Amino acid sequence: MSESLSSSRSIIKYSHQEFIEQEDEIAIEFPLTIFINNEEFATMVCSPCDFEEMVIGFLASEGVIRFKKEIKDMTIDKNRGFAYIHLHSKEVKNQQLFSKRFIGSCCGKSRQFYFQNDVTTAKTSMINMTIKATQCINLMKLMQESSHVFKDTGGVHNAALCTADELIVSRSDIGRHNALDKLYGYSLLNGIPVKDKILVFSGRISSEILTKAAKIGVGIVLSKSAPTNLAIELAHDLNITAVGFIRGQSFNIYSHPERIVLDS
Amino acid sequence: MSESLSSSRSIIKYSHQEFIEQEDEIAIEFPLTIFINNEEFATMVCSPCDFEEMVIGFLASEGVIRFKKEIKDMTIDKNRGFAYIHLHSKEVKNQQLFSKRFIGSCCGKSRQFYFQNDVTTAKTSMINMTIKATQCINLMKLMQESSHVFKDTGGVHNAALCTADELIVSRSDIGRHNALDKLYGYSLLNGIPVKDKILVFSGRISSEILTKAAKIGVGIVLSKSAPTNLAIELAHDLNITAVGFIRGQSFNIYSHPERIVLDS
Repeated sequence: MSESLSSSRSIIKYSHQEFIEQEDEIAIEFPLTIFINNEEFATMVCSPCDFEEMVIGFLASEGVIRFKKEIKDMTIDKNRGFAYIHLHSKEVKNQQLFSKRFIGSCCGKSRQFYFQNDVTTAKTSMINMTIKATQCINLMKLMQESSHVFKDTGGVHNAALCTADELIVSRSDIGRHNALDKLYGYSLLNGIPVKDKILVFSGRISSEILTKAAKIGVGIVLSKSAPTNLAIELAHDLNITAVGFIRGQSFNIYSHPERIVLDS
Repeated sequence: MSESLSSSRSIIKYSHQEFIEQEDEIAIEFPLTIFINNEEFATMVCSPCDFEEMVIGFLASEGVIRFKKEIKDMTIDKNRGFAYIHLHSKEVKNQQLFSKRFIGSCCGKSRQFYFQNDVTTAKTSMINMTIKATQCINLMKLMQESSHVFKDTGGVHNAALCTADELIVSRSDIGRHNALDKLYGYSLLNGIPVKDKILVFSGRISSEILTKAAKIGVGIVLSKSAPTNLAIELAHDLNITAVGFIRGQSFNIYSHPERIVLDS
């Protein structure tokens, strides 16, 4: 790998009952838009490396090509995040099928989609609340205890909507997005205000997960796993506090740390 | 949760240098197709529970609705995997944007997509090969050693294409699919035959990942994590050996165990 898949970022670590500012390595999320024969085909969100392999493997997976020799030329514009492919054939196989896209267990969208559609539904958090460091740790513990499916199968994601002290509802799904959609649906069906609630999540905070949290309308997201750089930037912009790596008695704060306070 | 998210299945466990048949709990992957005002809107692959919440949360996330009251009625046909929603409005908001779907870091498709498009590209494995149990464990170890990014950021998936004894190529990406696409592209770009190779993967084996392995054309998939029930069924149908939970000196075989043999 010649390119870097991660970037260094300043974070706030909570450990031994205190906050320490330190540098952390964050995985980069990079949107690459593919054009075939001058038509936009798809956007992939990926780690910025091995672009040619990825595009060719993706086109083969989708049935657009079967062999390398079907590609006339390919240009990758790394600065702008574009891949231009020309096929020897003027007709793009499977394009019709491809355009009929479905939602998988963890489907995502691109920067473009974010700007087009999400902008109407993602909310900038205006909430002026704080929670204690030990409450963050306790909420993660409560969520993990609430799910037995993961222990049984090792195959599902868990998410919960919480107050600073209690779980309101917890949901499981093999799909990361689905678990959050279930919480969102629960809050809509039951008329529960969410802007002062906390989202606790077992999976990684990608840009899509952060965007979904913003759509639900929460101001604080707690995760057991790592965020990506794009998720941190979105969290910064949308005024959301993103906390990750809640494990044992420590965690990292990646954005808007003012909402997390030490226990007095 | 009233519904079950997992089902019991007979597997073969390798532990203490021997194979034992035992029952295991496997996460269920369930495709739910959503119709809005009698038009097909999307298919979600999910854990089979809390369908109403999930559908409402999903439609709100996508900007189709903002409030529960916009829904005139909703019927869930659990047996056939259909959700029928009628809105008070005849016009479906954001449908145009929605149809312009993008590929995220771990995007997926549905059963339908599998039947339509994947059927032309997914290959039934015809390979008549065996590998030893200790080789399975060794390949997982080699793949994990080959990636430093995960240790740094905790945020990427790793995948490798291997012979029984060695890694040929290993790739990392924040997206599960992308890591596999990179391997596929590498094999196409370099003219490497794949049908006698082994795919080693850090993530869960979902139906989408298993389908992608079949498109690449391998006969054996080794994973550190759990498979879903739909992935196991596909692996059975496509004659692929699926091995999961390779941790320490043990693992589980979920399909076509004849390719994995004890060390003599």
